[in-house]
Amino acid sequence: MSKLTTIARDDMATIALGGAFLGTGGGGDPYIGRLMAEQAIDANGPVPVIDVDALDDDALVVPVAMMGAPTVMLEKLPRGDEAIGALRSLEAVLGRTADAIFCIEAGGLNSTIPIAVAASAGLPIVDGDGMGRAFPELQMVSMTMFGIHACPMAMADEKGNALVLNTVDNLSTEKFARVITVEMGGAGLIALYPMTGAQAKRAILRGSLSLIADIGRIIRSEQAANRNPAERLAADLGGVRLFEGRVTDVDRRTEGGFARGRARFEGLDSYQGQTLTLQFQNEFLMAETGDGTPRAMTPDLICLLDLETGEPITTETMAYGFRVIVFGLPCDPKWRSDHGLDLVGPRYFGYDVDYQTIEKLNEKS
Amino acid sequence: MSKLTTIARDDMATIALGGAFLGTGGGGDPYIGRLMAEQAIDANGPVPVIDVDALDDDALVVPVAMMGAPTVMLEKLPRGDEAIGALRSLEAVLGRTADAIFCIEAGGLNSTIPIAVAASAGLPIVDGDGMGRAFPELQMVSMTMFGIHACPMAMADEKGNALVLNTVDNLSTEKFARVITVEMGGAGLIALYPMTGAQAKRAILRGSLSLIADIGRIIRSEQAANRNPAERLAADLGGVRLFEGRVTDVDRRTEGGFARGRARFEGLDSYQGQTLTLQFQNEFLMAETGDGTPRAMTPDLICLLDLETGEPITTETMAYGFRVIVFGLPCDPKWRSDHGLDLVGPRYFGYDVDYQTIEKLNEKS
Repeated sequence: MSKLTTIARDDMATIALGGAFLGTGGGGDPYIGRLMAEQAIDANGPVPVIDVDALDDDALVVPVAMMGAPTVMLEKLPRGDEAIGALRSLEAVLGRTADAIFCIEAGGLNSTIPIAVAASAGLPIVDGDGMGRAFPELQMVSMTMFGIHACPMAMADEKGNALVLNTVDNLSTEKFARVITVEMGGAGLIALYPMTGAQAKRAILRGSLSLIADIGRIIRSEQAANRNPAERLAADLGGVRLFEGRVTDVDRRTEGGFARGRARFEGLDSYQGQTLTLQFQNEFLMAETGDGTPRAMTPDLICLLDLETGEPITTETMAYGFRVIVFGLPCDPKWRSDHGLDLVGPRYFGYDVDYQTIEKLNEKS
Repeated sequence: MSKLTTIARDDMATIALGGAFLGTGGGGDPYIGRLMAEQAIDANGPVPVIDVDALDDDALVVPVAMMGAPTVMLEKLPRGDEAIGALRSLEAVLGRTADAIFCIEAGGLNSTIPIAVAASAGLPIVDGDGMGRAFPELQMVSMTMFGIHACPMAMADEKGNALVLNTVDNLSTEKFARVITVEMGGAGLIALYPMTGAQAKRAILRGSLSLIADIGRIIRSEQAANRNPAERLAADLGGVRLFEGRVTDVDRRTEGGFARGRARFEGLDSYQGQTLTLQFQNEFLMAETGDGTPRAMTPDLICLLDLETGEPITTETMAYGFRVIVFGLPCDPKWRSDHGLDLVGPRYFGYDVDYQTIEKLNEKS
């Protein structure tokens, strides 16, 4: 893995691509976030990427993100300054300015909006994130495992509405912020989990931006060589090719501020005659074969790649007839702890199964 | 009308009663608010009542209130310090402390909670309010007619969750605060419409607390003389006795943060053989006879009194078999302006009729 030290305009395409891959179907459309970041870099110059250990222990580090159903962001373009507005609201409450920005999750939008904010605010971005992937709810971050409070949390929408939340715990933050997001028209920009450098060193998942850039480069170079990137991603990331097939059915609805649903796939080539079902809530959470046998489940990553181009496919763009590779990847080991599985394991999402690792589920017998 | 200059413990019973009457079925249960105010006065002494003209032009005046479905407040008792918490949050945002409190509306809870807050905070309360009655939505105040913004607005619940809203207009404040109220479990405590003394002098409806105390005293003295207070209230307040009857049907649901529904009444005594329907959203909004002829409509006041005791009956306590007097009262003339009717006229609430005054609807032919 190569270490990212600065993000220039030309890096944004690969970062948006790698972010969309780790977004496991969620985390927003990569195109919009990429445009926002490119514009901000054009106006303000490249963004320094720093290791979390380079932060002073008393530095103020703030993640910024889009919250809501990514489906909505396709039709409700951010105005561009809401994320900065959310950051400034939070700074006003805290009585100090941020020293660095970071990404709450990986994803097309949420790996790129923070770069746009860092560029606009003239701040470095930390090489790390709070999920190592995307998850649908905002308490689902490594910071929660380390007792860091999501509040004060600032929210802003494109109309000019803004607010600052202070809740008793991170699950309450999610619940309040979610209904507010719905009232904002389905999506809003947020700044939350303000933390010190010392807290960040303990809590965040390291190296995510470098990994995202690496993944983006692998996908681009394999595409350039007319190869599907799945093989090399599997080899380099320790992933598993779960399925190849065609989308035959997508049931997707925007409800309670989420894009929820399921998609069915019929096998192609060596998977002929088999079927696979993916269930999602913004992100893909469960992959099962036609007879209900799980092949991968949250918190492990389930990623969809276009069979021809190798481009990541998000839950909101997936449509009938798409030919895809379904790809699985082990999650960060922190998620496999008891606390981690309480936060993001299959039972939290209502699946009546105990977590089994993707490695175990796909052991060669 | 006698002018109220101070509120002692012994005044709370009549104020809660008069507030419940002007609450037109809403504004919350008088008992809880009365207890809260009595405890606060016991601990901190009587509350001075001041005329709005006694305020310095640059004084900071803040209404505090309960927001939500009053039905909920019967089961979800306030902890007592949420309202002070909301006030303190708002003061923190404004960077200054309040000089006086006032009531956003008349009602059992919302005429009494501000007294409790004023006592606890050691502040005077202004003799006035923003509605001259109760209305279900928070943009429905005279302040909106005078261009005063509801934000910054602070909200707090009994669990310790709190937030500060800044919206683009007062209708947006209502929409955001309403979904948050629902997430708070149906009700929350709020501090909003921070305004200067100069703004308050222009915008608020004057003398409401004195009027509420007067109404409370009339009800109590008529009860003591074994008379139903309806006759004297009609004479003193220019009101109309619309109906006497028995509740035969109540359809009431808590939805979207409101108590909504309708109640049907069958006539008693001289009203034998007639029926009346009341429709409500927290407050009574429309009174129609059995053939659909309106007898009174928002913004005029529709108040329900127990036929035997003369006690005001709220929409949440009204039940099958109650024998009642339905009483109508002209609203403050400000509400009859075009702007006032846009905010609180029958069409805003979805009734397909033009506003007609209660005087006109009940002219002797």
